[in-house]
Amino acid sequence: MKVSVIGVTGYSGLEVLRYLKHHPFVEVVSIHSHSMNKKSFDAVYPHVKQLISLPLEKIDTEKIMAISELVLLAVPSGISKELAIPFIEAGFPVIDLSGDFRLKDKGAYETWYKSTSAPLEMIHQFDYGLAEYREVPTSKWIANPGCYATAAELSLAPLLKKKLIALDSVVIDAKSGISGAGKGLSQSTHFPDSHDNMSLYKMNSHQHIPEIMQQLKKWSSEVEAIQFSTSLIPVTRGIFLTAYVKALAPISDEKLIQIYREEFEQDSFIRIQEVGTYPVLKQVIGSNYCDIGLAYNDQTKIITIVTVIDNLGKGAAGQAVQNLNIFAGFDQRCGLENLPIYP
Amino acid sequence: MKVSVIGVTGYSGLEVLRYLKHHPFVEVVSIHSHSMNKKSFDAVYPHVKQLISLPLEKIDTEKIMAISELVLLAVPSGISKELAIPFIEAGFPVIDLSGDFRLKDKGAYETWYKSTSAPLEMIHQFDYGLAEYREVPTSKWIANPGCYATAAELSLAPLLKKKLIALDSVVIDAKSGISGAGKGLSQSTHFPDSHDNMSLYKMNSHQHIPEIMQQLKKWSSEVEAIQFSTSLIPVTRGIFLTAYVKALAPISDEKLIQIYREEFEQDSFIRIQEVGTYPVLKQVIGSNYCDIGLAYNDQTKIITIVTVIDNLGKGAAGQAVQNLNIFAGFDQRCGLENLPIYP
Amino acid sequence: MKVSVIGVTGYSGLEVLRYLKHHPFVEVVSIHSHSMNKKSFDAVYPHVKQLISLPLEKIDTEKIMAISELVLLAVPSGISKELAIPFIEAGFPVIDLSGDFRLKDKGAYETWYKSTSAPLEMIHQFDYGLAEYREVPTSKWIANPGCYATAAELSLAPLLKKKLIALDSVVIDAKSGISGAGKGLSQSTHFPDSHDNMSLYKMNSHQHIPEIMQQLKKWSSEVEAIQFSTSLIPVTRGIFLTAYVKALAPISDEKLIQIYREEFEQDSFIRIQEVGTYPVLKQVIGSNYCDIGLAYNDQTKIITIVTVIDNLGKGAAGQAVQNLNIFAGFDQRCGLENLPIYP
Amino acid sequence: MKVSVIGVTGYSGLEVLRYLKHHPFVEVVSIHSHSMNKKSFDAVYPHVKQLISLPLEKIDTEKIMAISELVLLAVPSGISKELAIPFIEAGFPVIDLSGDFRLKDKGAYETWYKSTSAPLEMIHQFDYGLAEYREVPTSKWIANPGCYATAAELSLAPLLKKKLIALDSVVIDAKSGISGAGKGLSQSTHFPDSHDNMSLYKMNSHQHIPEIMQQLKKWSSEVEAIQFSTSLIPVTRGIFLTAYVKALAPISDEKLIQIYREEFEQDSFIRIQEVGTYPVLKQVIGSNYCDIGLAYNDQTKIITIVTVIDNLGKGAAGQAVQNLNIFAGFDQRCGLENLPIYP
Repeated sequence: MKVSVIGVTGYSGLEVLRYLKHHPFVEVVSIHSHSMNKKSFDAVYPHVKQLISLPLEKIDTEKIMAISELVLLAVPSGISKELAIPFIEAGFPVIDLSGDFRLKDKGAYETWYKSTSAPLEMIHQFDYGLAEYREVPTSKWIANPGCYATAAELSLAPLLKKKLIALDSVVIDAKSGISGAGKGLSQSTHFPDSHDNMSLYKMNSHQHIPEIMQQLKKWSSEVEAIQFSTSLIPVTRGIFLTAYVKALAPISDEKLIQIYREEFEQDSFIRIQEVGTYPVLKQVIGSNYCDIGLAYNDQTKIITIVTVIDNLGKGAAGQAVQNLNIFAGFDQRCGLENLPIYP
Repeated sequence: MKVSVIGVTGYSGLEVLRYLKHHPFVEVVSIHSHSMNKKSFDAVYPHVKQLISLPLEKIDTEKIMAISELVLLAVPSGISKELAIPFIEAGFPVIDLSGDFRLKDKGAYETWYKSTSAPLEMIHQFDYGLAEYREVPTSKWIANPGCYATAAELSLAPLLKKKLIALDSVVIDAKSGISGAGKGLSQSTHFPDSHDNMSLYKMNSHQHIPEIMQQLKKWSSEVEAIQFSTSLIPVTRGIFLTAYVKALAPISDEKLIQIYREEFEQDSFIRIQEVGTYPVLKQVIGSNYCDIGLAYNDQTKIITIVTVIDNLGKGAAGQAVQNLNIFAGFDQRCGLENLPIYP
Repeated sequence: MKVSVIGVTGYSGLEVLRYLKHHPFVEVVSIHSHSMNKKSFDAVYPHVKQLISLPLEKIDTEKIMAISELVLLAVPSGISKELAIPFIEAGFPVIDLSGDFRLKDKGAYETWYKSTSAPLEMIHQFDYGLAEYREVPTSKWIANPGCYATAAELSLAPLLKKKLIALDSVVIDAKSGISGAGKGLSQSTHFPDSHDNMSLYKMNSHQHIPEIMQQLKKWSSEVEAIQFSTSLIPVTRGIFLTAYVKALAPISDEKLIQIYREEFEQDSFIRIQEVGTYPVLKQVIGSNYCDIGLAYNDQTKIITIVTVIDNLGKGAAGQAVQNLNIFAGFDQRCGLENLPIYP
Repeated sequence: MKVSVIGVTGYSGLEVLRYLKHHPFVEVVSIHSHSMNKKSFDAVYPHVKQLISLPLEKIDTEKIMAISELVLLAVPSGISKELAIPFIEAGFPVIDLSGDFRLKDKGAYETWYKSTSAPLEMIHQFDYGLAEYREVPTSKWIANPGCYATAAELSLAPLLKKKLIALDSVVIDAKSGISGAGKGLSQSTHFPDSHDNMSLYKMNSHQHIPEIMQQLKKWSSEVEAIQFSTSLIPVTRGIFLTAYVKALAPISDEKLIQIYREEFEQDSFIRIQEVGTYPVLKQVIGSNYCDIGLAYNDQTKIITIVTVIDNLGKGAAGQAVQNLNIFAGFDQRCGLENLPIYP
């Protein structure tokens, strides 16, 4: 299968290339940037030298559709909605890593992204690509989930589906590595300001909140709101998410783990920890894995869920490749069974 | 005022010396280690060369009481309870930075520290040294609070005292720099394993939980339990604590901030952020400050409190010096008005 | 080809498994630890869960030789020399990642490793495995080079072979990530002591000095001594080596680069930078690449060589796999053509 | 003594304020920014809240001269040369932290800074402020040395003055924390690109080279060139400098140390290590100390000098305060005797 990738100079686009390099059935036939068209790719990123010999091209929709079977869009939210339209209008398959085609409620994008949304009927043609819970896996347009959203949704799915928790009790404290803020420069991602530091940002206003709500409601329509905070920690990659929910009835750690293992039995990339052990961030870095640990506190009736993913892996490029596998009918694990890089 | 410091080779003891170096009215007359008695101090810590010329001495209780007016004990929990006894029996003033004299309930220490407690009547002679809420500021025995406990208690005090929140709704997600684990070696604090990593430890079992509960009950006796999690983040110093509590009634951010500012009006080291701004960890490092930001979410009715301290500052040595100032009748700010180190 | 790996709980052994996971022609049939025999492997390293299902076994030489065709020894120097002997005596192929079989001069090991060497005649049966310069590529016993040694030797080879530099002028300032110190605990690798820090260690006494000298003398027998310093920088992985040598005659950067490109024309893993650009450490992390930048200073007549490798990649496991490929007659690139992980 | 500080929103200016906060005889009466005039200072830097209540003012030369006795200029090179002129013309004392008034040779500034220099006769009125070697300590205009230059000059002074080394053999490999690049944003100081990374920059072209040469020639007029490289390491603060020089005759480590100790006997901020020990970067952070370790290698005849400073301390703000003390006739140690922050 031949694919093109747009946005390869961004961190997610770069990671798409890293995964596809190993894919047994996919060949990247062209790479594109919306911001840097003149440079050779290994002049921008010397680490690809001798490994990726494709030139960095400007975006030529017609040419892409002529030589490829699918395009991966790894550009920032706001840009994707422009670039994707000609592909969609031509009926050409797209996996979009931005937030532009995820929110199906009228007005939601405008409220949370502070910008005009893509045409709503176009958004509705997209399948929300939470790989373990794809609804229309045959759609040719896939809105790859956000990094925080992926971790949050996978953390809560089993409890919501089994109706084990108080729906007004969800508190999620999520932390992200700084690559999550992208390649763009800002004071808060300047090394002297971010190193040895931690900060909470977008208090009660992160754009993944409506995305998470939209998915949670599919599992439990009565969920009304979740408390969701996002902080930056001084690591390059990774999301470390801690969720707290009130159990409707006491439950043992063993039982919790059993429920999660059963729910994700068919899912290669969700690994549930043993009783009394919790995942560390580093155990998924460089991979598409999502590792989850669970504990019930009988003093507070609260279940704590500790979930880790690589924001550029399962939270972006890894899941995009997984969605590509689903679309193409490949084994979901193709190109994704590498060991996380540790230490 | 002449003081001795025991445990100067540990991180907290070292930081006590750093603060006292500037203190206008306090002179450190002897320094001691329970583990390293033979070495010169600047051979262990070259950064003190020419600045601290005192020899590293073994612990001689009689001598200390002969030359000093107070002793600061900065040794690990479990060791303090042995070392403190002769001073207490002799009626000699002690500021203890360990957890050995904080828990006043029978059996609490045994349950949470998995070890025999100091004599309970001795513990009851100690004043719990949360500096802004000292009950018996004239006691000559002060149990300096834990780092997490300090941040958690100061975060919740105004809301509990004003009865503004649902008491069964407290969720605290606290993150600590790795110096909080002390100078002792372990795999989880080995650089290749801890750098670029994050981990949750002591799930539902951290020994500061009963300490926090003991203090919260003073403000609101009906509090029964709190959800309290502790994680390690890859920074050397600092506690970044995020607390979530359900408000009993809607409240504006402005009102929240006003309540906190009024509560801490007299307290030099508590700084409340402006509306819509939240403290970053680095803004208190190297200092005794505790900075707090507040936000109300009208979707979830949850108040988020973001609190940062230096675990070795307000969370240990800084507060110990503040308690020393209270004990001696000095201005609380003596020796503590340095600028945090930024960047 | 079936292989066994001994020392998989160390960082290099772990990395051997990460590379071999992708190898098209090699199957790891058993994994062993000299220190941890009872635990399951994913209990020690959760990141391998579902990816490596082999049990962690104790070392049974007979069994290994019965089921494998080659053994990779990734244990610390000093242990290897014991473990390797039965394999060698049985004529069974070994790739050894330790320093125990590298130094061929009588007394050298004793002098630099402060310990008794393996039998000298055994050492002489080993081929020193600097992959680009293997002398006896058919030997079944391969001493994989040290991480610093690999970077230093590749940096200097073209200049020495072409006799372009003053032989008494070599100064090498090498910096290593902390994983280079291995998994064992020490104060200098404790996070609070190593983070935000840098230190020079083993001043004029690093055990890679005689290893480098031994190789340099093959290219230029009159080299008598090199100045070689090793420092720790606060990164997990990587060697950043800066070498300074006096040119015998003025030379342009273009010419220097041409010489290096010609020398390494056949070598897939050596990438020479363009004029005026120098490699950054991160561009080789997670890979077997060695990237080299060059500059001539006409004020000082000094050529500066900047060389980066992943100490666990080209500096250990990557080169071991490359040596395995050479031994087995596979393409040297098998299993090693992954993109470095960036950012 | 009343002083004003211009450039307080930069890292060096901020650090000047941190030191002066403790100074017994100096009061900062006004603070200024050339880029941010409208904001309150604690809105930009919340860590100063309650500690610095001065407003952030625009630069009004007349007003500054009316209320102050001296101005510290902590703005980037290129801006200083404009801002300083009216003060100099009015005969008002200036300590300038930029590179604009350091290079006394005609054309040097243009060559290395790629920009028009300040009037040369003005530059000649400045005293180069290497505090331990001030020539005209009574000058009212002081060009505070560069961070790298300070470390390099102090490292070599005793050997040059005593004529112990081959003058054409100096190789300096200097590494800097990222705050050295200032507060301005760039891809190479963006966290995901700089964390876990190391890079050499300005190969053979760093603007501190002529500054160092100018000073070295004062001690040994025949020095013609030095090899000087600068790299970025992923720490916030600090310079770790390793210098290599050929000894004219064999020398013991003891003798080397004795020479350095004698040379710096009167200098409070230069600390020479014991035989066989070398400074680590962290032992000077937050302070004005410069720590030096020494070793002679009898194989190569090379003396290695390991020197550490805080680039914002002895390399900028600390030395500026030291120069202020010299100018005002205070003890050089005033305001500078704090303990480095460790860990």
